[in-house]
Amino acid sequence: MQTGTSFWRVNINQTLELLHSHRSDRSFTEQPIAEAELAAIVEAAYRGPTSINGQQVSLVVVRDPARRALLAEIAGGQPWIARAPLFITVLIDFAKTARAVAAAGEQQVIHESVEGFGVGAVDAGIALANLMLAARSLGLGVVPIGGIRKDAQAVIDLLELPQLTFPMCGVAIGHIDQPARQKPRLPLATFRHDETYRADALTPGVIADYDATISHYWQEIGRPEGLPWSRNLAGVYKLVYYRDTKPVAARQGFLNDK
Amino acid sequence: MQTGTSFWRVNINQTLELLHSHRSDRSFTEQPIAEAELAAIVEAAYRGPTSINGQQVSLVVVRDPARRALLAEIAGGQPWIARAPLFITVLIDFAKTARAVAAAGEQQVIHESVEGFGVGAVDAGIALANLMLAARSLGLGVVPIGGIRKDAQAVIDLLELPQLTFPMCGVAIGHIDQPARQKPRLPLATFRHDETYRADALTPGVIADYDATISHYWQEIGRPEGLPWSRNLAGVYKLVYYRDTKPVAARQGFLNDK
Repeated sequence: MQTGTSFWRVNINQTLELLHSHRSDRSFTEQPIAEAELAAIVEAAYRGPTSINGQQVSLVVVRDPARRALLAEIAGGQPWIARAPLFITVLIDFAKTARAVAAAGEQQVIHESVEGFGVGAVDAGIALANLMLAARSLGLGVVPIGGIRKDAQAVIDLLELPQLTFPMCGVAIGHIDQPARQKPRLPLATFRHDETYRADALTPGVIADYDATISHYWQEIGRPEGLPWSRNLAGVYKLVYYRDTKPVAARQGFLNDK
Repeated sequence: MQTGTSFWRVNINQTLELLHSHRSDRSFTEQPIAEAELAAIVEAAYRGPTSINGQQVSLVVVRDPARRALLAEIAGGQPWIARAPLFITVLIDFAKTARAVAAAGEQQVIHESVEGFGVGAVDAGIALANLMLAARSLGLGVVPIGGIRKDAQAVIDLLELPQLTFPMCGVAIGHIDQPARQKPRLPLATFRHDETYRADALTPGVIADYDATISHYWQEIGRPEGLPWSRNLAGVYKLVYYRDTKPVAARQGFLNDK
């Protein structure tokens, strides 16, 4: 599966090792996360870049077991959210920027556009990546979660989120019980393009090979009910799976431009 | 400015040091990036997580100086893009998933929704963060770039991007000439919320203090023309600054649901 790479000639450091070995560990002990570790993890997202230094991202840190249990349910029944001692929700937050724009005597409109929502989503992704890597550098396990958008309104109510904020994604963090295996990827040639895009990298044969690879992976980790890649994608992407995103975001004040 | 954190009690590792010291280095030498280093950087994004393992992200690696000069111009005249030996564009890529969904006998619709575009933007943000951190772990400097959306159609033409792909962001990477300073952030209390959101953290006084901090920062780095934070945000966010995002994304096949 893996095409030839030559990065073995680089001195691999701890950071590259962590980045190259990313996996979601869905099995956690009940050991809590120390406050000092949590502070170091949050700082990693806090120091990340944001578009025009707008800082249109905020975090809500949830330790409370009852609130985690509700988030697990909202996300479609994801037990690792209830089990992990810590869940961090990453918000697109144009409430803060709106105050700054008002302080400067103008009225913010960026949040009404797809451009604004997209900027916030990219910045949320950066924050999420930094949270994951910081946690993993401390030996902790992580599961990134988009499922909170399944019922975004319930998350908004639970976390008391104001207008111009939206819960885009989150991450469960805990001490690893049973380590996970890394999931195989499509061939690198479908991901890396040089100078211009090559549309012919993902052939039906490559898809069939990868389906077989993923099916083999499911067998090996003891989840034989797992679907081949293309069938799983088809089931989710033949419809708008989290169909509340747009209307709930609109109720929060986003995406109302015509 | 910095509120009290207690992560000094954690054994700070290389990864946390890099995450906590993020900065954009806009001054590069002309020394090229070794192919092995580039491969290690790309691998960091390749192994990052994507929503439902959809892998709806691709990269276009640009080394060609003429193409970098054009990208610098498209992004509104950002000379570091032309100067850095390497620019990597991060694409939202639902062209690959569409092929997989079709291979499984269904028709993809997710890309027509804000939900789909948002999922792609989060995944692009994760890839961007991983590229930046991998490069910085090798001692290289990075500048994340959203300005390619200023004329997204020109980027699409230049990189020959097919339908169902969109150039969301990118990063200039090079060997650092003059190291940059880290930009101060709003107080941590405006970023980290515990259990529920506190809307009162960002007061007019906090905004005024941060405006002063940023003005001082501009003075110290020799860019006295830099605006206070709130005035800069007001100038950009009182309108939809990159107004082509929605119509160009729609031409690429995105966001066409009613």
